[in-house]
Amino acid sequence: LNGEFDLIARHFAPLAGPEGLGLLDDAAQLAPPLGHDLILTTDANVQGVHFLTDESPDFVARRLLRTNLSDLAAKGARPLGYLLTLALPPEADEAWIAGFAAGLAADQAVYDVALFGGDTVSTSGPLVASIAAVGVAPAGRMLRRSGAKDGDALYVTGTVGDGGFGLDVAQGRLAGLSAAHAAYLESRYRLPEPRVAFGLKLGRSGVATAAADVSDGLVADAGHIAKASGLAAAIEARATPLSAAAAAVLAAAPERLADAMSAGDDYEIVFTAPPEATGVVRALAAETGLPVARIGRVHAGPAGQVAVIGRDGEPLQLGRLGYAHR
Amino acid sequence: LNGEFDLIARHFAPLAGPEGLGLLDDAAQLAPPLGHDLILTTDANVQGVHFLTDESPDFVARRLLRTNLSDLAAKGARPLGYLLTLALPPEADEAWIAGFAAGLAADQAVYDVALFGGDTVSTSGPLVASIAAVGVAPAGRMLRRSGAKDGDALYVTGTVGDGGFGLDVAQGRLAGLSAAHAAYLESRYRLPEPRVAFGLKLGRSGVATAAADVSDGLVADAGHIAKASGLAAAIEARATPLSAAAAAVLAAAPERLADAMSAGDDYEIVFTAPPEATGVVRALAAETGLPVARIGRVHAGPAGQVAVIGRDGEPLQLGRLGYAHR
Repeated sequence: LNGEFDLIARHFAPLAGPEGLGLLDDAAQLAPPLGHDLILTTDANVQGVHFLTDESPDFVARRLLRTNLSDLAAKGARPLGYLLTLALPPEADEAWIAGFAAGLAADQAVYDVALFGGDTVSTSGPLVASIAAVGVAPAGRMLRRSGAKDGDALYVTGTVGDGGFGLDVAQGRLAGLSAAHAAYLESRYRLPEPRVAFGLKLGRSGVATAAADVSDGLVADAGHIAKASGLAAAIEARATPLSAAAAAVLAAAPERLADAMSAGDDYEIVFTAPPEATGVVRALAAETGLPVARIGRVHAGPAGQVAVIGRDGEPLQLGRLGYAHR
Repeated sequence: LNGEFDLIARHFAPLAGPEGLGLLDDAAQLAPPLGHDLILTTDANVQGVHFLTDESPDFVARRLLRTNLSDLAAKGARPLGYLLTLALPPEADEAWIAGFAAGLAADQAVYDVALFGGDTVSTSGPLVASIAAVGVAPAGRMLRRSGAKDGDALYVTGTVGDGGFGLDVAQGRLAGLSAAHAAYLESRYRLPEPRVAFGLKLGRSGVATAAADVSDGLVADAGHIAKASGLAAAIEARATPLSAAAAAVLAAAPERLADAMSAGDDYEIVFTAPPEATGVVRALAAETGLPVARIGRVHAGPAGQVAVIGRDGEPLQLGRLGYAHR
């Protein structure tokens, strides 16, 4: 991209919010709303590791933005905007950049965020795209991983396992599904839906004691909450919420339940709340139209230990505890 | 780095400020000081492009952090902290990571900044490191590129040309210098000194109408100010401030004056101020111990056009107008 300042300006300047100053400056200027904290998070994606090598550029962009928004959602933060860095290989031509920018534009409209600034460089290796996302939460009210209390109930939004099975579909490793189920799972992997509205309401409700997004896998991310809170966790396998498509996978291969609970890329929110808050949690689910399942509890025990309880009441052994690709 | 969460935690968690929550969460929580704007900037560096392939990891880290702090300095912002993303090739082992973290620790102490968070991923290509830096400036007072007024004087801090000549030294392309001069120039390239204290005072003084850091080259960065301000600029070549080492280079090769004025990586601050503010600018230089040279002016004319005036009063032709490696 040497010498292609104009190319970048043409495609990215229209994405800049007022804070981005038309990308004419090397910096963004953000007036933080009174009584709020700034919430900052960053995620990097590498071609061939975090997205398929032949993924279309608009999906690469949208997935990267959405995974960052998922981090903010799990903090109860309202997203404002983001900084973008791109290390582009020679084959990323203007059509690729135009597609990438179009993906960002589409999701900026969906999630009401703007580009604050960025940097574009050249690499001889695989494409590396990184976003630092900026959100706001009421002062001192960010949801953390570390606030769970002994006896709190453990919840998760939506359904889990779809992301991992969707990657299998995209890579041709999962046969025998109906076309509709295969398409659903693949879409859940390629274009996750960060739970922004739910996260915001959860943060404002004040009932959540800890939260995390399900990026490494339900068991691993519940473990992050447990570890940061100095507690152990127990998850009931039969309470794990599954989509119809994931249920179809498990009907044919019941042993893959462990994969559903431990594969990553679901971008749901796993959180804890006191048992007496069940009514509030149900009301949040109803308000947002997003199912929330009570899947277990956290309790005094070895910090970070997660037991998965099978149908017989005995702990299950899980082969792998979440993606390690980071 | 698959599965090496603990490795990352061991080396990077000690760098986290209170905003970084011990890196136990996926996000940082920052309470912005009242009456201030948040200033955000990001820069990415690629191995073999922005730093030498065999550069030591502590210098890679410090240079990346410093170039980001230079962006904040040119905005008149006080740096608070940063988010870091690293795409690491297989050969970046624990010793490399330890060295990188040690470099960050050293410069965190120098510049009073902290790690807010980050993401570490694996790549099969060259190492890509990216920082998003966060600073604060009094509300509405960030220095921009776009505020220069017709007739303003143009200034630059320190000396220019050292970064470009230093890269030549590092790559063995510049012979015949004394060892002291060669070491000085190489150090200016490998470990630039962002003008943080000067930038802060310049911002607070209220005299600067526009500012930028000299990363792309004096002529190019003066051009950025001119373009964003809708003005032309004129720089007097003989007013360009040179180090003794750069002067020694030019004594042997006078034609390289154009390189001194157009090569990048100096990380000085170029800025404009009304002619009547010369006394204030001189006082800022005296307070900070950093020389400031008046090198020309901005004036009505084609937006972004920069004329370099030679000793004979005639415009010089410059072969290249600043680095394009981004």
